[in-house]
Amino acid sequence: MADELGIREKKEQDPNAWYTEIVTKAELIDYTEVSGCYILRPKAQYIWDTIRTVMDARLKERGVKNASFPLLIPERLLKTEEEHVEGFTPEVAWVTHAGETLLPERLAIRPTSETIMYPAYAKWIRSHKNLPLKLNQWCSVVRWEFKHPMPFLRSREFLWQEGHTAFATQQEAEEEAMDILIGVYKYVYEELLAVPCIAGIKTLREKFAGATHSLSCECYLPIGKAVQGCTSHYLGTNFAKAFNITYTAEDQQTHHVHQNSWGFSTRAIGVTVMMHSDNKGLILPPRVAQNRLCILPVFGKVVDGKSSNADVIEYCETLAEMLREHDPIVDSREQHTFGFRIADAELSGVPLRLDVGPKEMVEGKVTLVRRDTGVKESVFVRDLVAYIPQVLDSIHSNLFARAKAVLDGAIVEEHASVERIAALVAEGKIVLTPYDGDGATDDMIRETTGGKTLCIPFGKHPEAGAVCVFSGKPARHVVYIGKSL
Amino acid sequence: MADELGIREKKEQDPNAWYTEIVTKAELIDYTEVSGCYILRPKAQYIWDTIRTVMDARLKERGVKNASFPLLIPERLLKTEEEHVEGFTPEVAWVTHAGETLLPERLAIRPTSETIMYPAYAKWIRSHKNLPLKLNQWCSVVRWEFKHPMPFLRSREFLWQEGHTAFATQQEAEEEAMDILIGVYKYVYEELLAVPCIAGIKTLREKFAGATHSLSCECYLPIGKAVQGCTSHYLGTNFAKAFNITYTAEDQQTHHVHQNSWGFSTRAIGVTVMMHSDNKGLILPPRVAQNRLCILPVFGKVVDGKSSNADVIEYCETLAEMLREHDPIVDSREQHTFGFRIADAELSGVPLRLDVGPKEMVEGKVTLVRRDTGVKESVFVRDLVAYIPQVLDSIHSNLFARAKAVLDGAIVEEHASVERIAALVAEGKIVLTPYDGDGATDDMIRETTGGKTLCIPFGKHPEAGAVCVFSGKPARHVVYIGKSL
Repeated sequence: MADELGIREKKEQDPNAWYTEIVTKAELIDYTEVSGCYILRPKAQYIWDTIRTVMDARLKERGVKNASFPLLIPERLLKTEEEHVEGFTPEVAWVTHAGETLLPERLAIRPTSETIMYPAYAKWIRSHKNLPLKLNQWCSVVRWEFKHPMPFLRSREFLWQEGHTAFATQQEAEEEAMDILIGVYKYVYEELLAVPCIAGIKTLREKFAGATHSLSCECYLPIGKAVQGCTSHYLGTNFAKAFNITYTAEDQQTHHVHQNSWGFSTRAIGVTVMMHSDNKGLILPPRVAQNRLCILPVFGKVVDGKSSNADVIEYCETLAEMLREHDPIVDSREQHTFGFRIADAELSGVPLRLDVGPKEMVEGKVTLVRRDTGVKESVFVRDLVAYIPQVLDSIHSNLFARAKAVLDGAIVEEHASVERIAALVAEGKIVLTPYDGDGATDDMIRETTGGKTLCIPFGKHPEAGAVCVFSGKPARHVVYIGKSL
Repeated sequence: MADELGIREKKEQDPNAWYTEIVTKAELIDYTEVSGCYILRPKAQYIWDTIRTVMDARLKERGVKNASFPLLIPERLLKTEEEHVEGFTPEVAWVTHAGETLLPERLAIRPTSETIMYPAYAKWIRSHKNLPLKLNQWCSVVRWEFKHPMPFLRSREFLWQEGHTAFATQQEAEEEAMDILIGVYKYVYEELLAVPCIAGIKTLREKFAGATHSLSCECYLPIGKAVQGCTSHYLGTNFAKAFNITYTAEDQQTHHVHQNSWGFSTRAIGVTVMMHSDNKGLILPPRVAQNRLCILPVFGKVVDGKSSNADVIEYCETLAEMLREHDPIVDSREQHTFGFRIADAELSGVPLRLDVGPKEMVEGKVTLVRRDTGVKESVFVRDLVAYIPQVLDSIHSNLFARAKAVLDGAIVEEHASVERIAALVAEGKIVLTPYDGDGATDDMIRETTGGKTLCIPFGKHPEAGAVCVFSGKPARHVVYIGKSL
């Protein structure tokens, strides 16, 4: 019976099929009749709610307040900023009718909210005393992509938060864009999701439509592809000029504000799942797992028509009560074999298993089994309350270290030739190479390697005299190139 | 200058205009170019986030888990349950295009999510072991009403939570519908928002489309109108039959599940604002006010070219630090008069003001001013930490008592004649009267009184032999009738 619920696909053979099987069988996602729109089941929603709680607290420390702006954006507003509209209109879902009434103007379901928020910013911001203005909203957005959809990673509707801030000066804005990327987003990826990422700046060709420049966390998936984990954009005064957002400074002069927008979405859940899970099923980082423990009673043989199952079950319930801060599941389904119940616990992603049999009851012990390594350990019940948080932390650290090793193992520094770089990208490597910063070079990179520029990492610079192998021009940066989702 | 920011409209003269002025000038709401879709500014969002936190904890205690279902519902699914579709299609916003592509089937923006959730319920529920299933989502919905929109109270998009539960038996379902109404919704209205409500059952004519019966909390607005505060529906097996949601019981028989759906929206913020506020501005119940205190330094006269303002301001900042759990605002804008700053604090709805002048600094005192009553009190600084929570509780209780008196004052028991009831309804009263329970009688009530049935209150029954004055038939219930928003 264990086969029925087990994962059939292999991560190393067909990672896309394996991923789809994991997210559905481990009950993170279900499909609907609308292609590319998914149901986030409670286990996935718990991850998102946890991210939200942690991130919200960090944003509040930074003076950001929550607000809600409308879902629907009049077509004219969406088209206010030229570069922005070009970036988004091909994917916009349009509302044309209300009931049987044709609307006078089409309304876009927000693909992102700059154009519905900034007319209000223009009204609210008058003087330097109104700055900085820092608002955030938790909502869903719709981007009707026609590429093959994947749960969490590329869906037509997704949950996210979007922060939109306005400052008097470029320096304040740029500092905030960086602080959000590192102090909030990278923190959540690393400390909650156990996912390492490369922080950097997008090339001009790959930046957000309408931004002056975009920062991002790039993650690496074990399917040999990078994925943009989240972004933080310095919008400059582009939208401020389009929406006429100005303030009067202390010297009574009028200036355009400097703006940022930054977003983090449920895509991070997909990255997390794909990063850590294995051929037995889901592996959840403990800090985002609602149930950190699964307690399995081991049923004894029936002797003289009597079984001790009821005693073991009761004992397990007592343990569950003692360990309730970890929200344990007790799987005492007597109709299933121990092997089946182990397979089910492994599939479900619970970080730690406690096996308890009649013999262990007598000894005052349990067998602790880690989901990440499968390592078993016999532990006295009296030590559990103190020990379990340590093991959970150790699981988090181990998952992070494993993912970091995968990322580090994928990175290759190379500048010998375009052919050599293309071969590495085709293998699923991330290539760090000198780059001249031109958009035309990005086009050449896409054409010749089948990958694209991921980001220009912070704090890394080309050697003196280094040349961009794509253009032959002097390198101004080093850039990561790889296949990207 | 105080006039500029003051409220011009009078609650007692033009309550609708007064309300609109309050919600905009106190910075709860701003308008957008889409009629009926509003911006929830941080002060309003804080109220909603607080409701969400409290309600989410109470729902979790009841075994409810959060999930997210898609925003968009295929037309065919929306039309699965006949009565339901009739109730909603006139107000549905339809997505017809994605980018330039015409969609093969129109998609409705959810007006409520029964029809997108229940196909999944049909898939997930197999056996009695899968029951009860209790899911909730926090999201926004769109109902494109063509009546005159009002911020919070009647908007085309609003935030809400919607719970959808499935049970093996009618009894369990009905008990839950009642528990949600009383233990969660009425609790939030009374304990957070200081708003009393009448809990009862809707008449068949006024129930939710598709429900077997609907429970509601009805609130009374001081504009002489009732408003449905929130609803909890027992859906019976109506949707289970339409969507084929069945389970196998222990006896191996197949049954349809019994379902509930229940929702609480940002309308509650509108009810709260209208209930408590006055002609000076917003009055916020302390438990949903982000800033519970406003500290006003009183500036002294300039003597020999010296002012003591800096000292008072510094002292106020120290007090603010001491009282930081109440998130105090210090309004030390020297360019504004004390009167202006008082008016601003009153407009903004902060529950408690602390006035501090040079003389009080010396005495180690402050003047505490309640927003609800305007009553002033001199309090030693050393007592503030212990005293302020008591005053905030007292403000909550007073707001509730005042609102309760308004509600009680609006209720009249009357069964003399249709004309008499119509006259009371026209005056803005809520009339409690015997009622036969027929839908035709509801129609008659709408025609003859200009009001409608609000709810059949729990625990109240007609006297023996009582007759429904509208139909002349024997009364089966007593019902509240009034004008409703």
